Amino acid sequence: MVADVGYDSLSGRKKSGMLGRFSFPVLGLVAFALVLILFGVCTTLDGNSILKLEGENGTKRVIIPAGANPMMGSYGMMMDATAMCVMGFGFLYAFCRKYSWGGIVFNFLMCGLCFLWCQVCTCIVHVIFSGHFQKTEINLAAMISADLVTAAVLITFGVVYGFVSPCQILVICLIEPLAMKINEHIVIDFLGTSDAGGSILTHAFGAFYGVGLNLGLGIKPKYIPEENRKTNKFGDTFALVGTIVLWMFWPSFNGSLLYDDASVQHRVVVNTYLAICASCVTAMIASHLVHGGKLNILEVQNATLAGGVSIGMSCSYNVNPWVPVLIGGLAGMLSSVGYGKIAEFLENLGMMDSAGAVQLHGIPGVFGAVAAGIVVIATTNNQYFAADTVWTEMDGNTNGKQFGMILLSVLVTIAISFVVGALNGLLVRVPICEKVESHLLIDETPYFELTQGIVYKADPVSQ
Amino acid sequence: MVADVGYDSLSGRKKSGMLGRFSFPVLGLVAFALVLILFGVCTTLDGNSILKLEGENGTKRVIIPAGANPMMGSYGMMMDATAMCVMGFGFLYAFCRKYSWGGIVFNFLMCGLCFLWCQVCTCIVHVIFSGHFQKTEINLAAMISADLVTAAVLITFGVVYGFVSPCQILVICLIEPLAMKINEHIVIDFLGTSDAGGSILTHAFGAFYGVGLNLGLGIKPKYIPEENRKTNKFGDTFALVGTIVLWMFWPSFNGSLLYDDASVQHRVVVNTYLAICASCVTAMIASHLVHGGKLNILEVQNATLAGGVSIGMSCSYNVNPWVPVLIGGLAGMLSSVGYGKIAEFLENLGMMDSAGAVQLHGIPGVFGAVAAGIVVIATTNNQYFAADTVWTEMDGNTNGKQFGMILLSVLVTIAISFVVGALNGLLVRVPICEKVESHLLIDETPYFELTQGIVYKADPVSQ
Amino acid sequence: MVADVGYDSLSGRKKSGMLGRFSFPVLGLVAFALVLILFGVCTTLDGNSILKLEGENGTKRVIIPAGANPMMGSYGMMMDATAMCVMGFGFLYAFCRKYSWGGIVFNFLMCGLCFLWCQVCTCIVHVIFSGHFQKTEINLAAMISADLVTAAVLITFGVVYGFVSPCQILVICLIEPLAMKINEHIVIDFLGTSDAGGSILTHAFGAFYGVGLNLGLGIKPKYIPEENRKTNKFGDTFALVGTIVLWMFWPSFNGSLLYDDASVQHRVVVNTYLAICASCVTAMIASHLVHGGKLNILEVQNATLAGGVSIGMSCSYNVNPWVPVLIGGLAGMLSSVGYGKIAEFLENLGMMDSAGAVQLHGIPGVFGAVAAGIVVIATTNNQYFAADTVWTEMDGNTNGKQFGMILLSVLVTIAISFVVGALNGLLVRVPICEKVESHLLIDETPYFELTQGIVYKADPVSQ
Repeated sequence: MVADVGYDSLSGRKKSGMLGRFSFPVLGLVAFALVLILFGVCTTLDGNSILKLEGENGTKRVIIPAGANPMMGSYGMMMDATAMCVMGFGFLYAFCRKYSWGGIVFNFLMCGLCFLWCQVCTCIVHVIFSGHFQKTEINLAAMISADLVTAAVLITFGVVYGFVSPCQILVICLIEPLAMKINEHIVIDFLGTSDAGGSILTHAFGAFYGVGLNLGLGIKPKYIPEENRKTNKFGDTFALVGTIVLWMFWPSFNGSLLYDDASVQHRVVVNTYLAICASCVTAMIASHLVHGGKLNILEVQNATLAGGVSIGMSCSYNVNPWVPVLIGGLAGMLSSVGYGKIAEFLENLGMMDSAGAVQLHGIPGVFGAVAAGIVVIATTNNQYFAADTVWTEMDGNTNGKQFGMILLSVLVTIAISFVVGALNGLLVRVPICEKVESHLLIDETPYFELTQGIVYKADPVSQ
Repeated sequence: MVADVGYDSLSGRKKSGMLGRFSFPVLGLVAFALVLILFGVCTTLDGNSILKLEGENGTKRVIIPAGANPMMGSYGMMMDATAMCVMGFGFLYAFCRKYSWGGIVFNFLMCGLCFLWCQVCTCIVHVIFSGHFQKTEINLAAMISADLVTAAVLITFGVVYGFVSPCQILVICLIEPLAMKINEHIVIDFLGTSDAGGSILTHAFGAFYGVGLNLGLGIKPKYIPEENRKTNKFGDTFALVGTIVLWMFWPSFNGSLLYDDASVQHRVVVNTYLAICASCVTAMIASHLVHGGKLNILEVQNATLAGGVSIGMSCSYNVNPWVPVLIGGLAGMLSSVGYGKIAEFLENLGMMDSAGAVQLHGIPGVFGAVAAGIVVIATTNNQYFAADTVWTEMDGNTNGKQFGMILLSVLVTIAISFVVGALNGLLVRVPICEKVESHLLIDETPYFELTQGIVYKADPVSQ
Repeated sequence: MVADVGYDSLSGRKKSGMLGRFSFPVLGLVAFALVLILFGVCTTLDGNSILKLEGENGTKRVIIPAGANPMMGSYGMMMDATAMCVMGFGFLYAFCRKYSWGGIVFNFLMCGLCFLWCQVCTCIVHVIFSGHFQKTEINLAAMISADLVTAAVLITFGVVYGFVSPCQILVICLIEPLAMKINEHIVIDFLGTSDAGGSILTHAFGAFYGVGLNLGLGIKPKYIPEENRKTNKFGDTFALVGTIVLWMFWPSFNGSLLYDDASVQHRVVVNTYLAICASCVTAMIASHLVHGGKLNILEVQNATLAGGVSIGMSCSYNVNPWVPVLIGGLAGMLSSVGYGKIAEFLENLGMMDSAGAVQLHGIPGVFGAVAAGIVVIATTNNQYFAADTVWTEMDGNTNGKQFGMILLSVLVTIAISFVVGALNGLLVRVPICEKVESHLLIDETPYFELTQGIVYKADPVSQ
């Protein structure tokens, strides 16, 4: 434990953690080796994609026509969901003037690692809950599922944006998907709550995991250099690329896994589309109203998306089109108005949610669950709302019980995410990983080298 | 009518309109409430997506396999068309150095509102023409249709880019879709002209509506501060993102609604692809030739897309591949060469088309209709060209009559769009909405607040 | 041959080539005319898309339901592959501070021309090898094929990035697709090597063609002004847009042509996805390790994609999921570590690979072929690995022979691409085309005009 002594001459950063600047590559290689070995142990190719032979002596390849694999019908949606993770979140996180590359590149790294690691986690979680070992089939559905899990990790990154070193990021990527999948299992299989678009399973989970992590890390707002909190037009405009990618592909994100039933998938797409259109409009109205006749660009980047978050749980419900318009519209206002207030509240609690993930994903996620609960109470036949058939199989359910189960799911999700997040935050303070020095919070420059051959010219304005 | 007196202390803008800086949120809330209520009255969920039950006591959900909904086969195309609206037009409008955010964000707002409002308009227009009330089914086809209508509104925005306040934008979003749908009904159902990709229905309509609006608004080119007309590398490069998004997704835009017939949809995709490749090449050649051996970036951003606009009407025609190459190639040259000349002509008329929408959408749209007419005259079997079956049902049509009807459709479209646009322009001058002061034309800065918490740093170069 | 005398007053560039600044538009018009005429001669509309009539007197259009055209199931993948070409490569090439527009716009031009020209080349190459004339059917498959060919040309552009004038670019676009298709025919049909994702057919071919071209052009690294080799944050961040577009759509690129067999297409998608996730992680680890605890942004932009390049040949193989993870992971490290070393090696050879295409496409492409060969040797049933059925039809093949054929394919590809590339390089030195003066290497400014009407303001920082 000889951490925190002196400066590393090559990286120019203060030595911290046992491994100093080697902590990222060392842990990275360990993580990659782990992925590789566990891929060998835990995964197999999708059954329908394994080569099948027929004919004399097995000399002829069996051809499966395109239409025979309904999963491939969701390929475009899977691409959209992937684009939301890599491009949407990545560029949304480009907004800080000293952390544009940090946001884009670390987000990219998290996607690469989590997309693989999630497949291993699926196998592990299956063992935990079922007690027997079964290899994960790697197929399109598994890839879509990985998008939904990875999104939670990326949301968490938003709450500790600029506060974690690359090494600490790796640790988060290894732990959070496991916790997320365990919570998912509890909510869906034990509590019987369906959440097609992940209002609580992805969004609230990611946000409250981030809150726990942030407190566990112990980064106080007062530590953060004022200069590093600034945004500039360069970063904010790239963030708008992220916003728009997230906005337009949200229907795919919510609907991608439901390829088995065109009527539900179509309903999800329609409801999500309506909700997110509504939040785009209302978020801007609220922002303009709250800020004395001007739009706040941070709210335009984020609160416009609240409709997508909040419709996540009810997007598969069989409701009239005005319902998602209302849910999305209220979520947009709530998120936009809440931006300043919640940020202030959190800062008073001693934490800074640097990319506003609580306001975008946490609050609208919980709001979405409550809204879904109200819809369940207000309607009949609601036992058929769910995308899966859990409720139809539970006899004697009343609307009230369903509502209660939804609220319980919210509480369970917040509890698990917050506690595991906090433990994760404490874990990454163990002096193995490199830490971020206070004056380098939200500052990417120590992590990027000037390009060689073609020389990198520090740009005094946008840098 | 106490408008135009003094300055508003919070927004820093001159008070104008009865409601001043409250005009946007007030009208916005009214518009949203209108959308919400009329959604309740005028829309219903798609019939195939409504929950159906079977089995004893209706306890089992009916599952519709993915392939059974051919509309879902156009889902990817619908996403592409949406990307063109939100991302394509949005970033194309980032080109002005003082209006990058104005372009992206106001375009985003227009998409959110119009996507919803179009569904209501469909119901209204149906009542107008059929005389009986019928709810709009919200489904993928309705969403695609909303993309085609919204594109027209976004094109109109290009002609008054930087000249309208957020409140005025809302008014345009409420009126233009109605006018556009009425014109569409007249052209398709009364004149029997098919226009799969909207050469005149979307592009020419949007552009000439903008011309009318611009004149109605009465913004003279001499009012516009020279500084605010400038572009910079920052904005122009983001505009190239928009150009490329528009360019590559154009085949989807033209083909998305034709999911009923794979042979026509495929033909549309192929023809559009060929035309837009051709215009990319010829627009650059023409630009280089006209500008003394250099490419003009505004022409690269816009004229390269003229092939997509011009092939809109004939993209469903059954022609040899060299025909779309020729049409697209000529449109690219025409648009590129015309850029300077038409801009000058319009400025002499006393108007400035600030984003060049007339040259990109107006002229190539009309050219595309004329080209389609020539193809109709030059070929046999042309009564089967159309995507719909209108002409096959009209007995006794000759090629010449079809050509005449196409020309008539052009004239009707220009007349309706120009007149309604001009009236719309006069309407938004009524002192209810806030107006844009002359020295703030093409200047977004009064409409965006510095971000709070994370402080916005004005960038002296890119701002 | 009166080239190189004096300055052209309009373009401001030194007069060079017989046609000077007219060389681009003149050759461009010739190329476009050639495309147009040869489209008339060499192409026809896809058979399934040609209008068919039935009923009495042929009065009824035959409707083909969407599902009946399996090719349309790959439409989304085709769009993704097109996005990789136009948007992915385009923005990846925005990295140089004085060549952002050059990269994006010239890449765009190359796409427009090559997408058309490839269709003509298909017909020509068919005549060359089969001896009889057959029109190319323009359909989705032909468009996807054009993406794979065009990608090779864009890769080549990366090796001579900033060294060629627009006129010289046209010449490359006309010659390379022909050479590429001839090599493809030799490798697939004569040597029986399948290469679904184009590890050698697209990537290695493009890179080594570029090496030949570069040497043929005779641009020495010492000629290049130090200032012009610099990158800045503006360009490098746009390049990350390109990186992410390329990264996420790679599964589509590799799988798009295999719509006939869902099991193979799905396998390709899964394998590619795993490989590229792995290279994203390992490339960053290696970069961080090699550069003293910092990430090199050039390597983040490029080496992260090496998994996609290297899995190209084996992506259709029937292997366990850990295999592509391993191949992609090694490729990422190899590419990242090699960046500095190979650049140095090439500079010592007297050439500069300005966008690093050899390290991204050349080396990982060859590595991918060798890896595929090793997989073939290490497994049984490998005769069924290929996406096509070539090997199943060749009796008596042993694993060793297959391996040998793969190596031979690599050598043939390198030889053809290098030699034709070098000849192409010599050809564009013939004083017809304008050349780039030494002090204007990697400098776009002489090729772009300030915008008119809206005045272009040179940005002292990002320009």
